[in-house]
Amino acid sequence: MRELMNESRVARLASVTPGLQPHLVPVTFVLVDKVVYTAVDHKPKQTKELTRLRNVAAHPDVSVLADHYDDDWSNLWWVRVDGQGRILRNGDERESALDVLEEKYDEYREHRPDGAVIAVDITRWRGWSAG
Amino acid sequence: MRELMNESRVARLASVTPGLQPHLVPVTFVLVDKVVYTAVDHKPKQTKELTRLRNVAAHPDVSVLADHYDDDWSNLWWVRVDGQGRILRNGDERESALDVLEEKYDEYREHRPDGAVIAVDITRWRGWSAG
Repeated sequence: MRELMNESRVARLASVTPGLQPHLVPVTFVLVDKVVYTAVDHKPKQTKELTRLRNVAAHPDVSVLADHYDDDWSNLWWVRVDGQGRILRNGDERESALDVLEEKYDEYREHRPDGAVIAVDITRWRGWSAG
Repeated sequence: MRELMNESRVARLASVTPGLQPHLVPVTFVLVDKVVYTAVDHKPKQTKELTRLRNVAAHPDVSVLADHYDDDWSNLWWVRVDGQGRILRNGDERESALDVLEEKYDEYREHRPDGAVIAVDITRWRGWSAG
């Protein structure tokens, strides 16, 4: 499970709004020990103070899903981690996470994220594979 | 946005548990007018009465996301619909939804889903494209 998640290029971050609605965005991410890190990067966003940051600050429970689709359903799999989000606006942990993100994504080497990093402290792994 | 969503083979369904945690699963789906339909199918599950059904029954707010990842980030896009889920355990609307699911997915033609269908009445569209 860990390897499938780690090798995925994209995942989806689900959080809960203060109004208790689910909120869902695709994210680039890295997995380091028991933490998932995802950065607010330079890709255009609808607002600067993102919904995901507001949500995590108010309600730290989040879920992160990586999945693989294929029309041959014997190749399907998904991996999900649930955990508690923390917002890193500066500091060593944020810089270390950005270093690992740069190793994984060329685009980050060209443009290191300058926004907040969300750290998700994993409390549960779930996975499923058809094969 | 509608076309990108409609042509996607997989999406992710976020719901909220009775304990107010986000819950996230990949789903096959169809889009019909202002409704997204996704079926509980024969693919093995951890339990028969799925978390997603329990969640929607208790808390109908859900979110459905389709996205496209590419290491060239100028090709990225995502489309999200937020809405209210309804559980269809039998009846004409469920049968019609299954007909459309069978048109989209060969695997459903070979094995028509026999479980509940979740109908998501769309209340909001959101989308983003890098291009």
